[in-house]
Amino acid sequence: MRLAELSRRSGVASATIKYYLREGLLPQGRQVNATQAEYGEEHLRRLHLVRALIQVGRVPVARARQVLTAADTSLDLNERLDIAVQALPHDPSASGPDDACVRRARETVAELLAQERWQLGMELNDNFFAFRMLVAAVAALDRLGYACDVSQLTAYARQAAAIAAHDLDMVEKLAVTPEGEEAAAAFLILCEPLLLALRRIADSAESYRRFGPV
Amino acid sequence: MRLAELSRRSGVASATIKYYLREGLLPQGRQVNATQAEYGEEHLRRLHLVRALIQVGRVPVARARQVLTAADTSLDLNERLDIAVQALPHDPSASGPDDACVRRARETVAELLAQERWQLGMELNDNFFAFRMLVAAVAALDRLGYACDVSQLTAYARQAAAIAAHDLDMVEKLAVTPEGEEAAAAFLILCEPLLLALRRIADSAESYRRFGPV
Repeated sequence: MRLAELSRRSGVASATIKYYLREGLLPQGRQVNATQAEYGEEHLRRLHLVRALIQVGRVPVARARQVLTAADTSLDLNERLDIAVQALPHDPSASGPDDACVRRARETVAELLAQERWQLGMELNDNFFAFRMLVAAVAALDRLGYACDVSQLTAYARQAAAIAAHDLDMVEKLAVTPEGEEAAAAFLILCEPLLLALRRIADSAESYRRFGPV
Repeated sequence: MRLAELSRRSGVASATIKYYLREGLLPQGRQVNATQAEYGEEHLRRLHLVRALIQVGRVPVARARQVLTAADTSLDLNERLDIAVQALPHDPSASGPDDACVRRARETVAELLAQERWQLGMELNDNFFAFRMLVAAVAALDRLGYACDVSQLTAYARQAAAIAAHDLDMVEKLAVTPEGEEAAAAFLILCEPLLLALRRIADSAESYRRFGPV
């Protein structure tokens, strides 16, 4: 199909598709003459994947490219999944002032991970965005006077571990081919908004059950 | 203390504090002369709360005001917590084309909530942002060919329900005074980045355990 049809079938504007082609998120089509190229079903599928990562997973364009091109490289599955985890959105400015609360939060988080025996392939520093995000959240709670020590965090950490075990079960089912490894990395990303939305709705339902009109 | 000291102690720029004052996120100080006002410890605490909601919870400014001023109104706790859930960040453009996948996703989500007997104070339509977000995530997974029916989603829904039960236990401990209700609503918001970060780190740890170097 031509670019116009790829645009119509995907619901993505032609200009946006051209941008993804330039950025290497979408492989080039088969050139049929000087100005036109032909695209296949694999382009449509890849376009859905790119849109899902960017719009639903809120992954920045440059990070989406890393997730997608990781499949072409010699990385192993664990490295590939770490790229997916690092691609998830985070706000580098969120940590706030580097005060006593932040220092205490770093210690609390390190202690929590040691207690739960979570071993990682990434080093626990600010280049691991999820670590920085966790420190910022713990520091913010501490600064506001909410109790936020290891014992308070343990329940949430265990729930996160249960979710991760389920996530990785799904990954193992998907990652049986190189294309499957790409799909598994994308799945890990797309489950985040799913979980977020489910927790928000569950909070609302549980609040209604406890405090709503009888 | 004067504005300059409030700025120094909070690490928030004076111009930003003035903006929060204008937007009603921070109560006015006690005017000491035509150009200067005096601020107290309660301003410092409120400023930390505003910053945490906006920077760590990624709540938009207008929504942060709703969460904070809800404490001054006659809303009950359930309504107040729904305002907090609605204040959490969401991308209104994320739903993608309104195609067969989105229609199927709406049905799947409605079926899931009925199966799990989640009763809600908010109606299940696009004005309930978490519902829209969940539909968008399920539709994106469906569009990419990942199995995403009620049985696939049930495990995640039960994990979300377990988290919500824990969240609301914390809320019950906090919400014993009107100020406590405000703190409880803020807590619900600030736990989201905490959970997100923990799930990312847990995914990375579980991936390392299963696929990392031996």
